[in-house]
Amino acid sequence: MNSNSYGEFFKITTFGESHGEGVGVVIDNCVAGLELSVDDIQFELNRRKPGQSKLSTMRDEADKAEILSGVFEGKTTGTPIAILVRNTNQRSKDYSDIKDLFRPGHADFTYFKKFGIRDYRGGGRSSARETIGRVASGAVAKKILKKLSIDIFAYTIQIGNIKAENFNRDFIEENPVRTADENAYPLMEKAIMEAKMAQDSIGGVIEVCIKNVPVGIGEPVFDRLNARLAYGIMSIPAVKGIEFGAGFKAASMRGSENNDEITPDGFLSNNAGGTLGGISSGQDIVFRFAVKPTSSITIPKNTIDIHNQPQQIITKGRHDPCVAPRAVVIAEAMAALTLVDMIMIHNGRQII
Amino acid sequence: MNSNSYGEFFKITTFGESHGEGVGVVIDNCVAGLELSVDDIQFELNRRKPGQSKLSTMRDEADKAEILSGVFEGKTTGTPIAILVRNTNQRSKDYSDIKDLFRPGHADFTYFKKFGIRDYRGGGRSSARETIGRVASGAVAKKILKKLSIDIFAYTIQIGNIKAENFNRDFIEENPVRTADENAYPLMEKAIMEAKMAQDSIGGVIEVCIKNVPVGIGEPVFDRLNARLAYGIMSIPAVKGIEFGAGFKAASMRGSENNDEITPDGFLSNNAGGTLGGISSGQDIVFRFAVKPTSSITIPKNTIDIHNQPQQIITKGRHDPCVAPRAVVIAEAMAALTLVDMIMIHNGRQII
Amino acid sequence: MNSNSYGEFFKITTFGESHGEGVGVVIDNCVAGLELSVDDIQFELNRRKPGQSKLSTMRDEADKAEILSGVFEGKTTGTPIAILVRNTNQRSKDYSDIKDLFRPGHADFTYFKKFGIRDYRGGGRSSARETIGRVASGAVAKKILKKLSIDIFAYTIQIGNIKAENFNRDFIEENPVRTADENAYPLMEKAIMEAKMAQDSIGGVIEVCIKNVPVGIGEPVFDRLNARLAYGIMSIPAVKGIEFGAGFKAASMRGSENNDEITPDGFLSNNAGGTLGGISSGQDIVFRFAVKPTSSITIPKNTIDIHNQPQQIITKGRHDPCVAPRAVVIAEAMAALTLVDMIMIHNGRQII
Amino acid sequence: MNSNSYGEFFKITTFGESHGEGVGVVIDNCVAGLELSVDDIQFELNRRKPGQSKLSTMRDEADKAEILSGVFEGKTTGTPIAILVRNTNQRSKDYSDIKDLFRPGHADFTYFKKFGIRDYRGGGRSSARETIGRVASGAVAKKILKKLSIDIFAYTIQIGNIKAENFNRDFIEENPVRTADENAYPLMEKAIMEAKMAQDSIGGVIEVCIKNVPVGIGEPVFDRLNARLAYGIMSIPAVKGIEFGAGFKAASMRGSENNDEITPDGFLSNNAGGTLGGISSGQDIVFRFAVKPTSSITIPKNTIDIHNQPQQIITKGRHDPCVAPRAVVIAEAMAALTLVDMIMIHNGRQII
Repeated sequence: MNSNSYGEFFKITTFGESHGEGVGVVIDNCVAGLELSVDDIQFELNRRKPGQSKLSTMRDEADKAEILSGVFEGKTTGTPIAILVRNTNQRSKDYSDIKDLFRPGHADFTYFKKFGIRDYRGGGRSSARETIGRVASGAVAKKILKKLSIDIFAYTIQIGNIKAENFNRDFIEENPVRTADENAYPLMEKAIMEAKMAQDSIGGVIEVCIKNVPVGIGEPVFDRLNARLAYGIMSIPAVKGIEFGAGFKAASMRGSENNDEITPDGFLSNNAGGTLGGISSGQDIVFRFAVKPTSSITIPKNTIDIHNQPQQIITKGRHDPCVAPRAVVIAEAMAALTLVDMIMIHNGRQII
Repeated sequence: MNSNSYGEFFKITTFGESHGEGVGVVIDNCVAGLELSVDDIQFELNRRKPGQSKLSTMRDEADKAEILSGVFEGKTTGTPIAILVRNTNQRSKDYSDIKDLFRPGHADFTYFKKFGIRDYRGGGRSSARETIGRVASGAVAKKILKKLSIDIFAYTIQIGNIKAENFNRDFIEENPVRTADENAYPLMEKAIMEAKMAQDSIGGVIEVCIKNVPVGIGEPVFDRLNARLAYGIMSIPAVKGIEFGAGFKAASMRGSENNDEITPDGFLSNNAGGTLGGISSGQDIVFRFAVKPTSSITIPKNTIDIHNQPQQIITKGRHDPCVAPRAVVIAEAMAALTLVDMIMIHNGRQII
Repeated sequence: MNSNSYGEFFKITTFGESHGEGVGVVIDNCVAGLELSVDDIQFELNRRKPGQSKLSTMRDEADKAEILSGVFEGKTTGTPIAILVRNTNQRSKDYSDIKDLFRPGHADFTYFKKFGIRDYRGGGRSSARETIGRVASGAVAKKILKKLSIDIFAYTIQIGNIKAENFNRDFIEENPVRTADENAYPLMEKAIMEAKMAQDSIGGVIEVCIKNVPVGIGEPVFDRLNARLAYGIMSIPAVKGIEFGAGFKAASMRGSENNDEITPDGFLSNNAGGTLGGISSGQDIVFRFAVKPTSSITIPKNTIDIHNQPQQIITKGRHDPCVAPRAVVIAEAMAALTLVDMIMIHNGRQII
Repeated sequence: MNSNSYGEFFKITTFGESHGEGVGVVIDNCVAGLELSVDDIQFELNRRKPGQSKLSTMRDEADKAEILSGVFEGKTTGTPIAILVRNTNQRSKDYSDIKDLFRPGHADFTYFKKFGIRDYRGGGRSSARETIGRVASGAVAKKILKKLSIDIFAYTIQIGNIKAENFNRDFIEENPVRTADENAYPLMEKAIMEAKMAQDSIGGVIEVCIKNVPVGIGEPVFDRLNARLAYGIMSIPAVKGIEFGAGFKAASMRGSENNDEITPDGFLSNNAGGTLGGISSGQDIVFRFAVKPTSSITIPKNTIDIHNQPQQIITKGRHDPCVAPRAVVIAEAMAALTLVDMIMIHNGRQII
């Protein structure tokens, strides 16, 4: 049973709520002898952090990581690495007037029904603050992957109806939308700001690319690399769909068009998205996922309260009008965690 | 480590290759006292079976199930249920001339690179015959769900560029495409037959609907019901993408449009696709997935052999021109297995 | 959840009942490219088989193994290896007159209470016939260990009050008690035959020795090598206790006596039993376990029936008067399975 | 893969080293709505704490627990409960002169060989301080079991050669040895003090009793209740053996003596130790385990350094001369964790 753990071999367990003492993660089965500092983790947390631009919530958490265990004299020891980020800038009172209401599009209703109790402050455990543990542990996974020359990066390819058409990798971290298209960027930013001005929010699509994955990673028949990536990405809040390579377009293709031909110098196309039979082929792993518009908006909506009475609600608090730019960082983390996990599993079997 | 197992609580382990002795499954942690006969299993296997119409391969396996254990006097005993289907109609010689070639779009290349060895007969383990174990165990899961009044059904909504626009549930099992749209059916059939005549194949999209799931099923933060379903569905051969509720369309929506409002009588829409925060909300669970066109086609294509020399290949054997109609049955099985698993997990915690 | 699976990486799932269609096992995550024939498996099954001497039950099952999957042209392919042994010599009618009675010392009572149903024929799933799956998969594990020069063997060191005091490894497989003490052997045999003549049964102790385990195997803090071995061995029917190295004697020792001193040439003693902190130290892994006297005896005993009414019972059927000689084979299998599992886990982490 | 996690359903993950920032635990899949305060946890930590009497080390850690997550307004929410205990009274310099030496009986050697790196301060992760996470989470498990009227308690039954012969439950927590025998207590205390005065240490045996376990708990064939308990108890540092019910004595018994007869009013004896076929029978679960004498002693001993050179060593630091009294508390925790886990698993299956 996984619940709050992810990974079979390289395994993380996240904990914490939006407005509790803090959020964090325990990483188990990390390699020993890896150089690891709190700065490695802080770097990725800062990329994820809210309040980086006008496109983001003003909740300005320091999000300061502390490594509690598993590192000695600057190196991992092979024992569990626990990382804690204290919550510091909570404004729980923002939530007191909605404590008996279920916010449309939020998990309030289902948490309450499932557990019979609900930490209403900022969504409690269902808050995207939980992803801090993912990003912190993802930073460790990325360090491992770097040693293996595996390179993961993600970027926004769609905001509302604006789609990216160009690709400049260097541009991604230079713009707050994290798109790789310099031309689309101002339009995407405008779409987000318009939604924000309208008290509303907007969705998007992110593409993830993983380079230099050795051939042979992924465990059929169930733990296909693509199935594990889908599982990890779909576990991120707000994600509504995922597709690999040609994706949904493959439905309208013929086999003669979709099959990637092979030559001694490599594949001639990548409709597969980097896996065949769930095992990496050595091509780039490429997938895309859609995020819904942020549920928290200040336009009044119909809902009910815990007594099943009809109510109107506007969701205050500090929220991004579009989650795509920060989902880029979270998706990279989930992809990195998945890759390290599957590489360890592949490696484990090679004992004779 | 899952590899050939699926499910954390209600757990299946499949085994077998396309042209070996047989294929099968072991189901662990099944409820005790469930009435179960081999006919329950055979019914679903027959729905999955090839050779049912001109749209399907002529490989006419009997696909006869045998229950080896776990059932006594017509009832499950709570011990492992092993089910075996012997392979009977293999024509391994179909494959002897491609035993050193990698078929484009197939898993030949990656299995060989991963394991250093490859059962080339009909794809070996990577064959869709493996899904017999899924469908057989899915039949057991469905029997359990029926006791809980939970209803799972799937249907083809797109073949090539032909999309379904109407819905008549009764029609699904009356046509070989398994579409619910009587008008689209002849067009879909035509699209498949045209591909077949052209020695080619074609893709499709399937929608799955699960009714009467009680509120509260799904274990955040990683074992969200939608994440688990995505994992299970993406583990089916040929699946290239999955989306829930509004899915990729949510990317171009605003929050005010996408959020499902709540009233004392229920939700006013179902853009979420039946889960909030990864937990079932009591609405229908609705998702769609895309299958690529069958990789096996008889149009010559470029490939390499195991010595990395360039070759031309046509993929003989007996293959469906479109996998969508049979993927309907497999998807229902994976959804049923996932549901039973997650319901047991939810139930397990309720001890005080 | 394990239930009928054992191992985290090299994982087996056993199935089958004493008087059903058969018993078997699925092995997942086996190495690829290992030469494996049905004879490798049959060899160990024959060692486990009943009816080998007058010390054993006369139930003369052929116990003929069939490999259903995972092996191609004499080598493992890395896919699941399913092994089936059909039941052939069942005499279910032996059990019909006790079908409503709970046999003292047997699992009848608890299976019935747990599952609400019970396959009363020969104990059903609780029969030691289930261990065929363990021994069959253990044969595969042993083949892998042999490639690593790891050597596992077990032998009876106590029957009733007769304790072995000498050790001659070559003698173990030459006597039906499987003791390594030529002097103790006739006394042990006599103790078993006396119990048998008295319609009774008798217990014993077995020692297991594992040589050439490399240093570093075992995953603290919970998956210590000794903890995993204890788990595996205690899961064998009839086992009542296990101890490592000095074992229970360590309770009456002082630290100065118990600590194994270290020299450049190795340890000066092995009170630890081959692990320190749960990790193999390179010394022999040595442990002992006790098996209770067989529960099935033909001396009349008090019991109840399923209606909670007092009854007298004698347990007919064909049973060994002492399980120790055959437990030797089962223990070797469980130790081999555990070792391969833990070696794969240790190996998996070594990716940088 | 478990490594630093224990439990399949009610799952804990411990982290932390003896002389790092702290030690702790994350509990996953706890019931929701359980009243839980930090005092519940502190109560058990105080029982485990060193420095409680002259029999124990003088390391006087405050061992102050902080609940970081999973509890809201005094009740568990069903989300992960993270508990942190900061290390405050480390004296790392005690260890600087042995940082290149391997202490006999310690895990220094194996950790160094396994991970290629070693936190030498107080044993790092292999320190018994790690068990704080077990005891803290065990306190939560005990609260759950109390709601189910299940009662777990342990007591010392042997120190060196002194064995308890009487049983007075009330006396257990009134004496620092935690024996239930008022007559044996002064002799046990004397044995410990004599070892301490001789710069030495001494071993012991602890018995654990679990009352009111409902019939039906435990999952054959591998996750037998006794196998899981053996796994959990053997994962505690210093434990060398475990036995259930008649235990090793069963080896010298006949079946007619060992089988527990059944009457309408219950079993007439408990040689089984509370399980049949690995499933609880409703009788008391009774088992015993042996702890070796503390490895850390100040009598000089032979060892080697990391360059494989011969050395002499005395192990300073602050250590108990006998671990039995505190092992009582740790064993109760492991038993409680195991019980809750297995009860949840049993309960999970009951869905129809």
